[in-house]
Amino acid sequence: MPAMAGVFVDATSVNRRVTETAVGATEAGADVTRFAAEVKPGWDIGGNANGGYLMAIAGRAMAEAVGRPPVTLTAHYLRPAPAGPCDIEVTTVRSGRRFATATATLTMASGQVLALLGTFGDQTPGGPSRTTEAPVVLPDYDDCELPPPSTDGPVPEMFRRLAVRIRPGDEGFRAGNPSGRAEIRGWFAFADGELIDAIGLLLVADAFPPPIFNTDLPAAWVPTVELTVHVRGVPEPGPLRCWFRTRFIHDGLLDEEGEIWDSTGKLVAQSRQLALYPRPPV
Amino acid sequence: MPAMAGVFVDATSVNRRVTETAVGATEAGADVTRFAAEVKPGWDIGGNANGGYLMAIAGRAMAEAVGRPPVTLTAHYLRPAPAGPCDIEVTTVRSGRRFATATATLTMASGQVLALLGTFGDQTPGGPSRTTEAPVVLPDYDDCELPPPSTDGPVPEMFRRLAVRIRPGDEGFRAGNPSGRAEIRGWFAFADGELIDAIGLLLVADAFPPPIFNTDLPAAWVPTVELTVHVRGVPEPGPLRCWFRTRFIHDGLLDEEGEIWDSTGKLVAQSRQLALYPRPPV
Repeated sequence: MPAMAGVFVDATSVNRRVTETAVGATEAGADVTRFAAEVKPGWDIGGNANGGYLMAIAGRAMAEAVGRPPVTLTAHYLRPAPAGPCDIEVTTVRSGRRFATATATLTMASGQVLALLGTFGDQTPGGPSRTTEAPVVLPDYDDCELPPPSTDGPVPEMFRRLAVRIRPGDEGFRAGNPSGRAEIRGWFAFADGELIDAIGLLLVADAFPPPIFNTDLPAAWVPTVELTVHVRGVPEPGPLRCWFRTRFIHDGLLDEEGEIWDSTGKLVAQSRQLALYPRPPV
Repeated sequence: MPAMAGVFVDATSVNRRVTETAVGATEAGADVTRFAAEVKPGWDIGGNANGGYLMAIAGRAMAEAVGRPPVTLTAHYLRPAPAGPCDIEVTTVRSGRRFATATATLTMASGQVLALLGTFGDQTPGGPSRTTEAPVVLPDYDDCELPPPSTDGPVPEMFRRLAVRIRPGDEGFRAGNPSGRAEIRGWFAFADGELIDAIGLLLVADAFPPPIFNTDLPAAWVPTVELTVHVRGVPEPGPLRCWFRTRFIHDGLLDEEGEIWDSTGKLVAQSRQLALYPRPPV
């Protein structure tokens, strides 16, 4: 685990995740650090980069600026992000003994894409633990299903990079048979078997199809307004057990909450987002 | 509802909530608006102002700066807040047709107390609704119990201003008989019967005793690291049904999530926070 915990600040690492979310400091002041990075192609659905992928880029810059891994990070999504260069400006708000808090913006040619606020530090600072909830129960990885689209249409490049598998019973939406429950459970891994660190968890938090695909609502990719991820630990090696669900769909806004456990059964992240159900064209 | 929806921007209103969380603009620029306000006495536990109360003050300033009510607001807590004057600086990040996004800081004599990031706009923008979860079931308001302390020690002033009532069965921690489940369900109202608007909901989200009081852990007030509130609508008149629970206590950090329904059974807010269990003195 010590080796993994270092990955997130190791910008020289050649592993894929650091390649894909690499950031380079261009200017470092007392409180403000600027980074240059690139929203790489192949992390989009329909031309707009995935929200978790964008959060991972910005979260890496923030973690490097304050020198600590993320504990709780919130991103608000301001406009779509095509592939291309971006700038990240990180402002350290407070750097204390236990935690550091920072704000950030991620800006592309089209304007500001993300606004972020996060607290960084030790995800396991020491103190009591009480476990009352078991990890989500899943069939073996190989007995789970590929995410959509299954056969018709090209598989988005993003789903070739990830090795997401969906629990049988939660994948019916792929064939027009939604389960009727707005939840999707399954496994997350990188296709190349790469280890998942604290920055990778930010991507995992938004990597599954929207749980509302399993309702009777017409399937539509729902733009995220805000995503908050609590990173509760660095995963041990192996695919992650994930459970995403939407509980409250109201007047065009909906929540999505997620839990992510590692191979040892430890909760490593919780997420919650508020998203917008697109109004039908008139 | 239209009349209530206006309360949050009516700084001239004489109702208690606006008195207690009033903000006055001192400087308005193109993107930055500054406000003066006061953390009033009587909203503290042990000398530190309640986190929801602080979020309500800052949230009001942000809502006034962008001219819209909160939809999703995140606050990170940087240091304790005694009663006293404070300054709030709001920076509008983006003001679009549907939503406006802003960051803010709340600063007191001791330094910066809060960092915030929120999106403001219409909580019910229109679109599909699907209700699968019913409001939490509670006995009648008058059949529920007062929050702690019950008989020993003075009742904190805050609990005299609020009319919180706890579901029988969830109140055993008051007498040293915790239920064993980290949850507290109950009613929320203001003691003077005042209506609860979108700003008031920010206070409600942190107004109950910590659910971990119902575990076997020694009762300790847990400082909030980060609190995110999704405001899903303006409540109809009447006490609110509330459900707060902690599911993951790990190595000294714990989550707390909440749901708040109005008298018509509509979900009006969801909350989630990450808090720190204090290390025992050595």
